[in-house]
Parts: sequence; structure tokens; C-alpha cells
Amino acid sequence: MAEDDAAREVLEDARRLAEAGEWAKLVALVAGLHPADLAELVLDLNEEQRKTLLDHLPTDIVGQLFEFAEDDELRDLIRGVGIEDLPAVLGEVEDDVAADVIQQLEPEEQAETLAALDRGEEVAELMAYGDESAGGIMTRGFVALNEGITVQQAIDYLRVLRPPADRAYYLYVIDPEKRLQGTVSIRDLIVSAPRTTLAELTQRDIHAVNTGTDQEEAARLLQRYNLPAVPVVDEDGRLEGVLTADDLIDVLQEEATEDMYRMAGVGVKETPFSPVLESARRRVPWLGFNMVWAFLGAGIISLFQDTLDKAAFIAIFMPMIAGQAGNAGIQTATIVVRSMALGEVEASDTLRILRKEWALGFLKGTIFGGILAVVAWVWQGNVTLGFVAGGALFLNMIIASTAGVVIPITLNKFGIDPATIAGVFDTMLTDLMGFLIYLGLATIFISQLT
Amino acid sequence: MAEDDAAREVLEDARRLAEAGEWAKLVALVAGLHPADLAELVLDLNEEQRKTLLDHLPTDIVGQLFEFAEDDELRDLIRGVGIEDLPAVLGEVEDDVAADVIQQLEPEEQAETLAALDRGEEVAELMAYGDESAGGIMTRGFVALNEGITVQQAIDYLRVLRPPADRAYYLYVIDPEKRLQGTVSIRDLIVSAPRTTLAELTQRDIHAVNTGTDQEEAARLLQRYNLPAVPVVDEDGRLEGVLTADDLIDVLQEEATEDMYRMAGVGVKETPFSPVLESARRRVPWLGFNMVWAFLGAGIISLFQDTLDKAAFIAIFMPMIAGQAGNAGIQTATIVVRSMALGEVEASDTLRILRKEWALGFLKGTIFGGILAVVAWVWQGNVTLGFVAGGALFLNMIIASTAGVVIPITLNKFGIDPATIAGVFDTMLTDLMGFLIYLGLATIFISQLT
Repeated sequence: MAEDDAAREVLEDARRLAEAGEWAKLVALVAGLHPADLAELVLDLNEEQRKTLLDHLPTDIVGQLFEFAEDDELRDLIRGVGIEDLPAVLGEVEDDVAADVIQQLEPEEQAETLAALDRGEEVAELMAYGDESAGGIMTRGFVALNEGITVQQAIDYLRVLRPPADRAYYLYVIDPEKRLQGTVSIRDLIVSAPRTTLAELTQRDIHAVNTGTDQEEAARLLQRYNLPAVPVVDEDGRLEGVLTADDLIDVLQEEATEDMYRMAGVGVKETPFSPVLESARRRVPWLGFNMVWAFLGAGIISLFQDTLDKAAFIAIFMPMIAGQAGNAGIQTATIVVRSMALGEVEASDTLRILRKEWALGFLKGTIFGGILAVVAWVWQGNVTLGFVAGGALFLNMIIASTAGVVIPITLNKFGIDPATIAGVFDTMLTDLMGFLIYLGLATIFISQLT
Repeated sequence: MAEDDAAREVLEDARRLAEAGEWAKLVALVAGLHPADLAELVLDLNEEQRKTLLDHLPTDIVGQLFEFAEDDELRDLIRGVGIEDLPAVLGEVEDDVAADVIQQLEPEEQAETLAALDRGEEVAELMAYGDESAGGIMTRGFVALNEGITVQQAIDYLRVLRPPADRAYYLYVIDPEKRLQGTVSIRDLIVSAPRTTLAELTQRDIHAVNTGTDQEEAARLLQRYNLPAVPVVDEDGRLEGVLTADDLIDVLQEEATEDMYRMAGVGVKETPFSPVLESARRRVPWLGFNMVWAFLGAGIISLFQDTLDKAAFIAIFMPMIAGQAGNAGIQTATIVVRSMALGEVEASDTLRILRKEWALGFLKGTIFGGILAVVAWVWQGNVTLGFVAGGALFLNMIIASTAGVVIPITLNKFGIDPATIAGVFDTMLTDLMGFLIYLGLATIFISQLT
């Protein structure tokens, strides 16, 4: 898109101005940028340039950068602004953004910054909610109207309040105890008679969540019912905040990334640019866990050393029998894990899915076991080898199909995120069982193999 | 959540009424359900029950089901409604939903259904856009106002038009040639003087896409700039439609599922409940592709048959050297693939990521190569075996790190979705190189191994 190219050009120019230290020109150039683009630019600079540019930018623009930065980018921005200027910047942002930023600080810095904020108490309240709960990500920026007022009073109130456009999509209707009754759209105000009370217009069939609701559950609600926002209430039904679509989209994206990374044993918060040691700290334990299983596999193979001594050529097909079934199992596990994450599969579906995957495993096993049997027979001129290798692959495929369904569903039942280890369990099982079945069969038929 | 339990109970009751054939009671029960919940219920019934229930439901409610069903569920709904009643139902839905539905039909049914529709021409126009383009998923349900009219005229117009609340969030401002000028929020109308013209209020700094823009690009725009909707224009800048957040959320979710499935070699449109043969058709080719590589691996092992004959015990560590490096490579490839999908990594970052992954590969290789060397040495009482096995794992880890970065970025450069085959390439390469290096080293040092 042409628009994208233009944006990229501005970024290039900005980088050049930063290199040259032309700060006044740079500020003039970036003043018109969207905060999301400006945030990218600022985060792309080196630490010194970032500090200088942030010093030159007006406080309210710096505040917007915090709203558009991702969680893992906040620390760089905080360092750039400097802890002493942070309260001034946070005075310009929504409470929920301020809470996210302050959460990144050391405990004593948190206390100082909160004390220096006008709305420190409100921010501290938000910080008390769990990080991944609805309360932890909700915004306080909503418009609530009492159900007893008239349409004309509501319009007059909005004229005085002048809420930002992105807050005024839904107007929340509350009773005198602040309990959420429903919503009124601003359109309803325009098209209704001025004397109508809001109570008459209130759309009461709404989906709300509690402050303690998991953010992913809220995101799924938004997606399922195509909602533009989800209100958050406390245990007494009082309106406490609102989850907006853009926040919940980020939750859905993070969740998908998490599952993908977990399947591969990668740290959830890792990016391609994480420092080496941080990446190592996240990836090495998982590889270590794999290594333990791999030694178990080596142990199983070593049990059959006599067989291998007599017929070393059987080692040729050993990795294939483990690997091919492992791949088949990963296919099954991936579908089951993702479908559970999307809420399409529950524990009660186990038998139905199992029956299907068994049929599929039987089919895959027959096809690839058959191919391997023929190839092994023709290649090594030994029909028994064909039977042993093909049979082992067939059986291992059935095991893989079963494990691909049962393991993730069982993990989920015990409250363990199946994405974390379902894939590992599956391939490790097919490794061990593959070696055991193949070398076991070979040992039984060793007289016909040598 | 209590709300969820209540919804579940209604679904249970509904199922029982359907079993009992109590259709009047069932219709009364489900009339109050949200279309998303009703769609789930209807799709859960068997084909006959579904047909009967759909026959008993009012046309407008059936229309809403189509709006909330996923693409792969549309066919079941179409069969339930019956092709002859379809035009009446589609008369109740937005043009973009009608287009999606008709796209599921056979060509001659498409023509008949379009001919029977009041707005057949408009729907056919939408169908002409690519399935995954902005034009293909945009809705025509937007409110456009001429920039020349006043705030009072706009409010009067809205009072007559009474657009659904979810359309009236953004009002699009166009010039006399229908070219998009920007947006006005309904809030701006309320808080501005009645004689102000829209041109004065128009927010002109907006993000629009073309009808041909890929849906994923549009979704990323929405996410990056926290937009509630993205307008779609033709090549002359004329407003043609709008992409709403709920449609683009579905695009983001589908995209994540696709990438995850592709990494595992699973069909993109597969669900745990796809028919066995359909699943087989999608999964078997990928396994076949793997099998070819596995035979290549077997071929490499067979090259070293002499070595294996002399020292069969080296086979014990063979799968581990291939597998452990493969896992490390998958970690790298997963991060790179997902980050490219999220737009966080570009080709220009290759060297930077490569340097990091090399450092990481060196670290992983030293740790796990070292462990393997010591274990192999102590276990088999042969220091050369330790050196050969540990060295092979170390080298293979470096290869895995390199491939995990270079393969996905290269595939992407050639316009191939890296998720499709990056993982496969990486594990296959580490298999082949693992066997080659390990058995090669063993062959060189065979005199010290036996």
C-alpha cells in the first residue's frame, strides 16, 4: 500500500535526523505520526537517542506511546523517560495504562511513582487485580449514565463531558447503587424523543464479566458474540470498568502465540530479539527435559544390543519408525490442542475424536507401514525385515493417534495447559514405543533376520 | 461464570425437547437465545432435527444464524434450510453474509439463488472479490454522509434512517464523487453546534484499505492502530464497504490457527470432527513428504553399514543426536515464523537474528553436547565415543540454529508461507546432518571405538 511506503519513508528520515542529532527537525517531523508508528520509531533508536528524543517530545505525546507499546517494550520507554519524569507522563494516560507501566518498576519505585500521581489511588486499585484478569486489563474510561435521567439530560451531559469518541460508543446505564443495568447506544439517544428516560431505552441483554474473570474468557466472549466491548462488574454487579476490543484482540493474539511457542518449547515472552541469555534460560530447560527422555530412548535401544550386534542393518529404519509416528501424533495433538483453546472441543468429545483418530491411525499405519514393509524387503532382500519394520510402524501409528487425543485432553482435565507438553509427550512416547516395538519384534524374529 | 451455566442448561433443555419432537416448546425456549448460542444448538442437532427446527423458526432469526456461523458450518445450515427457502432467509441478512452463503453453493444453484434475491446484483458484486481480500469480507452496512451537510441535517437524517447501533459508531464522510474524506463520530454530532458542516468536523487522518488488500493486512492495521473498523475504498478512493472488528478478529484467529496447523502439517480447514477421509486427504501427503526424507535418512545410515557392523552400539545415540538438534531448530523456527506473521521481523533483520541464534546454538550445543559426551563416555567406557557423540550433537545444534533462521526467511522471500514447511525442513535437515556427522565421525575414529 502506498500509505505504508510513505510511513516507512518518514521512519527512514526520522532515523537519519536522530543520527545527525537534529532534534528540533525530528520533533517537527514526527509530530504528525500515529502514536503506534512513533512508538516503533522510538523503540528502534539506540538508548541515548531514545532518551534525547523523548526529552524533546511533549508529555502528552510520550503518554500516547505508552498506550501503543507492547508489554515487553514498556521497560525501554520507562528507561528513556527516566523515573523522575514518569509521573508527569503517566498523568496523561488512562489509569489502566499507568497501572501496566508502574507494574514494570521495582517495588520502591512503584510506591514513589504512585505517590506522585494525582490518581495514584485509582491506579493502585487496578494494580491489585491479577495481571491476566479482566480487572487487570480493563479501562476506567467509560461513560455511565443513571437510568432515571431523560434522553435530553443525557445529551446535555455528554455535551459538557465531551468524552473521547472511542469511549462514547456504548453508554452504560446504571442504577442508583451503580449496578450495571445495560447499555444505551448514542444512536438511540439521537433517534429517541427527548423526554424518554434511559430506563426505557436500555438494552438489558448484555454480556458482562467479573473483575476476576480470566482475560481469555472475556476475549472469547467478545469473539463469540461479536461485541465491540465487554463491561466488567464487581461481585455486587457494580460497573468497574470496560474491556475494549483492541485490548481483547491483543489477548487473543498473545494466547495464540503462547500456544504455538509452548508446543515448540519456547519461552512465552520471547521475541527474536530477546537477549541470548534470556532466551537460553527459557529454552534450555525444555531441551533438558527432552534430553532425559532421549536418554531413556537410548536406554531402550541399548537393551537390544545383542540384536543390533547380530544384525546392525536394522538400525537403518529405527529413526524412521519413531519419527514418522511422532509426526502423525503431532498432527493429532495440534488439532486437539488448538480446538480446545478455541473452545470447540470439550472432554465429553473424547470418545468421538478418539474413534476418528483411530480410524485415521489405522489408515496412516496401513499406508506408511505398507510402504516401509515393501521398501525394507526389497532393499535388504529380507521379507522378515519388511514385516518387522512395517508392523512396528503400523503399531506405533495407532499409539500416536491415541496419545495425540488422550494426552492433551487429560492434561487439560488436570488443569495443565495442554499446549505446554502435549507435543513433547507425544513424540517422546512414539520414540520409546517405536524403539521398543521395532527392536522387540526384531529380537523375536532374529533367526530370520541374520 | 453463572451466565455460562445458565446458557448450558438452556442448551440441554433444548436438546431434550428436540429429541421429544416438542417443536412449539422448543421454538418458545430458543426465541430468547443469542444467535451465536442458537447457532451452536442448531448445528449440534442431527440433520433431521435441524431441518425441522429451522422450518419452525422465523426467517429473520434463521438469517441471524448465518451471520454467526463459521464458514465451515454454513453448508450444514444451508442443507437445513433447503435451497428453495434460501432466498427468503438471505433477504434478511447483510449482503456480505449472503455472498458468503451463496459461495458455498454449486454454480447453477448460485445463479438461481442470486436471481431470486432482491439485492442479487449487489451480492454478486461482492462475490466477485477474492475470498481473502478486504472486498470479499467487507460489509456494505455503513452510514455515509456528504461533507457539505450540517450537523443538524446529519442528525435529522440519522433519525429517519435509524441505522442499527453497530453501524453508527463511525459515520463516514464522502465528497460528491463518493470519495472517502474521513470520519465523524456520532459523539461529534452531539457536542457540536447544529450549523457546523461535517467538513469542519471530519477526522481526515484515517486508515483505509483497498478492495484488493489482503484480509490479514487489514486485520494487522486494525490491531496496530487499535481501530474499531477499517473502511474499504476502490481504486478511485470511493467508499465501498467497511471491515468491522469482529470480522477482522476472526481473520486474526484463523491466521494463527493456520500457522499452527501448517507447522504440524495439518489441513488448514480441518477440525477434530472432519470426516476421516477428508482428514486423511489433508494429512497423508505431508506424512508422505516426510517419509521421503526419512528414507533419505535411512539411505545415509546404510552408507555406514560397515561402521555399524563393527560397532553396533553407536546406534544407541543416533536418534538422540538427530532429535535433540531437531527440537532446538524447531524452537528457533517457531519464533521466527510467528514473529514474521505478526510483522515483527523482516528480511533485513536476518543477520541480527542469525548472530543471536548462533550464540544460542553454541550455548545449547556446549551444554547438551557436553552432557552427551560425558554420559556416552561413562556408560560405554569409551572416551572416543563420548567425543564423537558429543561433537556430533554440538555441530548439529549449530546447523539447527542456522537453518531455523535462514529457512523461514528464505521461504518468505520467495513468497512461500514459511509456516507450511519451515518446521519440516528444519527437522529433516537435522536428521540427515545428524546421521551424517555422527556416523561419519564414528567411521573416522572406528579403530578407537572397537
